[in-house]
Amino acid sequence: MTIAIGIIGLGTVGSGTVKIIFENQSLIKKRLGCPLLIKKIAVRDPSLPRLVQVPDTLLTTEVESLFRDPEIKIVVELIGGLEPARTFILEAIKAGKHVVTANKAVLAEHGQEIFKAARDAGVDVAFEAAVGGGIPIIKTLKESLAGNRILSLTGIINGTCNYILTRMTEENITFEEALLQAQKEGYAEADPSLDIDGLDAAHKLAILTTLAYGTEVSLNDIYVEGIRDIEPTDIAFAREFGFVTKLLAMCRETETGLEVRVLPTLIPEKHVLASVRMAYNAFYIRGDAVGDVLLYGLGAGQLPTGSAVVSDIIDIARNILTGGSGRVPPLSYQLSNLVRLPIKPMEEITCRYYFRFSVLDRPGVLSKIAGILGENNISIASVIQKGREEGGPVPIVMLTHEAKEASVRQALKEIDQLDVVTAPTKLLRIEKP
Amino acid sequence: MTIAIGIIGLGTVGSGTVKIIFENQSLIKKRLGCPLLIKKIAVRDPSLPRLVQVPDTLLTTEVESLFRDPEIKIVVELIGGLEPARTFILEAIKAGKHVVTANKAVLAEHGQEIFKAARDAGVDVAFEAAVGGGIPIIKTLKESLAGNRILSLTGIINGTCNYILTRMTEENITFEEALLQAQKEGYAEADPSLDIDGLDAAHKLAILTTLAYGTEVSLNDIYVEGIRDIEPTDIAFAREFGFVTKLLAMCRETETGLEVRVLPTLIPEKHVLASVRMAYNAFYIRGDAVGDVLLYGLGAGQLPTGSAVVSDIIDIARNILTGGSGRVPPLSYQLSNLVRLPIKPMEEITCRYYFRFSVLDRPGVLSKIAGILGENNISIASVIQKGREEGGPVPIVMLTHEAKEASVRQALKEIDQLDVVTAPTKLLRIEKP
Repeated sequence: MTIAIGIIGLGTVGSGTVKIIFENQSLIKKRLGCPLLIKKIAVRDPSLPRLVQVPDTLLTTEVESLFRDPEIKIVVELIGGLEPARTFILEAIKAGKHVVTANKAVLAEHGQEIFKAARDAGVDVAFEAAVGGGIPIIKTLKESLAGNRILSLTGIINGTCNYILTRMTEENITFEEALLQAQKEGYAEADPSLDIDGLDAAHKLAILTTLAYGTEVSLNDIYVEGIRDIEPTDIAFAREFGFVTKLLAMCRETETGLEVRVLPTLIPEKHVLASVRMAYNAFYIRGDAVGDVLLYGLGAGQLPTGSAVVSDIIDIARNILTGGSGRVPPLSYQLSNLVRLPIKPMEEITCRYYFRFSVLDRPGVLSKIAGILGENNISIASVIQKGREEGGPVPIVMLTHEAKEASVRQALKEIDQLDVVTAPTKLLRIEKP
Repeated sequence: MTIAIGIIGLGTVGSGTVKIIFENQSLIKKRLGCPLLIKKIAVRDPSLPRLVQVPDTLLTTEVESLFRDPEIKIVVELIGGLEPARTFILEAIKAGKHVVTANKAVLAEHGQEIFKAARDAGVDVAFEAAVGGGIPIIKTLKESLAGNRILSLTGIINGTCNYILTRMTEENITFEEALLQAQKEGYAEADPSLDIDGLDAAHKLAILTTLAYGTEVSLNDIYVEGIRDIEPTDIAFAREFGFVTKLLAMCRETETGLEVRVLPTLIPEKHVLASVRMAYNAFYIRGDAVGDVLLYGLGAGQLPTGSAVVSDIIDIARNILTGGSGRVPPLSYQLSNLVRLPIKPMEEITCRYYFRFSVLDRPGVLSKIAGILGENNISIASVIQKGREEGGPVPIVMLTHEAKEASVRQALKEIDQLDVVTAPTKLLRIEKP
């Protein structure tokens, strides 16, 4: 017996997947009990150079030939983007093929349609590679923590942002300089906005929140801020207070509702997430039974992402060899048990805050600011006021105790209108995951 | 449909398992698609007080009644130790029950017998809870990394030792003082030798090595040193060189064979494993495709270990609901593909070394020591010589470049016979996982 697969797309992840299956063929057979056979690879242009050597006979430009081939049991979609990926996935399902994909965008936007079609057709759809590259976060949430109520999930889930913030932190360079480095090193695209504005993280967080809480999440429900406006001076002040600046994606159950957001955030420097440097990703999960668990690794790249694709292929092959499909529901909860929990508006969340006020160095300024904060029920935990230019602007940096976002916004609005305030106040949230 | 289970043992892990199933019953049903029912719990003395409230009607002293009950599909062995655990597991298998166990000792000693019986009976045996508490290390090796050649696995896999070493490091106290604290806090047994002498770690490492490399490993093959002889002064000197002292369990493929050992080891303080403090465990895995992955969490305790047991129960329930057993081979490789790879003798390994010589403060001592090291092909990377008592003993601390264990032993034998050497040289290995 052999499990035959068809792959759509031979870009970075496709090449990694093929390379792993070729090189570790005999090892995979010893584990799975039978070989994996790549029968066809659909590409747009067979003459293009590739990252992996593939016999010409495997390549085809006709995607439909994969769906028509009765030997192919698993179709692996690795072209990314919304269309034609969505159509290919749905056609594969209709043809009775199981599907493996690394496509977080298509799942975040069309997941419902895809998973319902798969259920009706009695096939599996697996997507470990869509979040966290080779880190087994999807399987861990769906299987290893299946007995747990998930209290919170906090992740560093965008390698580009973490790379930029790490270099800004360790070399005291600006965002623009760090971004340029990231582009040079291949960690950021020419157009980096999907990453640095937080949308990539939001796509992934939408999927993770569904897996953790059994709730459908649309991107609009997720409050997102990227890292474009982070300045080295804030990273440096935060360090003086013992905090590290990270782009955190977080979902959390609270007594007053579900919180889901992507934000640049200060975390204590001794927290294990603070040690996640450069392009590494990490997921910090708190379960009611398991306590705190961290998964850490490379969240992107040809081979790490290929590793996740291959593990999904093997997983489905095991289902084919021993029984039916639908063994583990694709979104962790049975589709019939998925709900739509309300997500708490950002204004209602509470956390600690970091403020950097830009003020004129005049008597009474601090008391004015403190007064407005007090009126808005925001209590100050510590203050640094440094340097002074006679009559010129100086920074006052402040950490608060727990406060409500709405109060903070109201207070900053009032403070930023003071005539001694020379620039909009910088604001960062502080969390202890 | 309901999946009925029987549990043997209602100690720490048993209580945790029952608590999780009771409290998260409806959540588990939403994920699994049907409820888990605890039908019987076998205990020695039903009148004993328990960590969880259980209806009297569930308790029985007759273990055999679980095997005879046709409704019970899964038997969960949580009494630990070799016998009668082994017998109960084999009887359950013979009765056609799937088995979940948290018992690393019985697997390390009788795994072969148990897994072959399970294969012949067509039932599953799962044991996520046997290593790393709630951390999904077993599933990650067997499933998520199934496409990878494992290059190395390095773990902090004994919480008691890590707790003791952390307190010694952070508070500069002796081993004895830290052990006492560990016992007070419930992190060490009254007789702590299984933990502190490294045998518990060796049991776990034997299992992990089999999963990673498809090789049978006996405990005798594993070179083990515990942490009894670690002194605060060595921990402090190591820190001056930028290293942290951890009890590491490691298996690794090298060109000259498989290395498997448990040793107190110095690792660079910036390595992510160095930040694993107190009773936390961590597994650092290097795969040829996935790169470096870390899994981190609580390696013991009622609820974390119960979390792993429940995930195994759910896993098997899913097999029962959708198909056959034997979906994933219990030892990652198909039983017929298990081999017995030779393990490299400790004398043949190479690594960097930390030495602390106790010598009389006389001219020419360092040159004598350096001479012997040189004759044995051991090259010195750095030296600290501190303090001096006129004519009295002083420590000389030295780090080497890569050297061979056999050469090191020979050199230290010669050095320790010098009349200027006042005490046996302290030796620690240095690794960069």
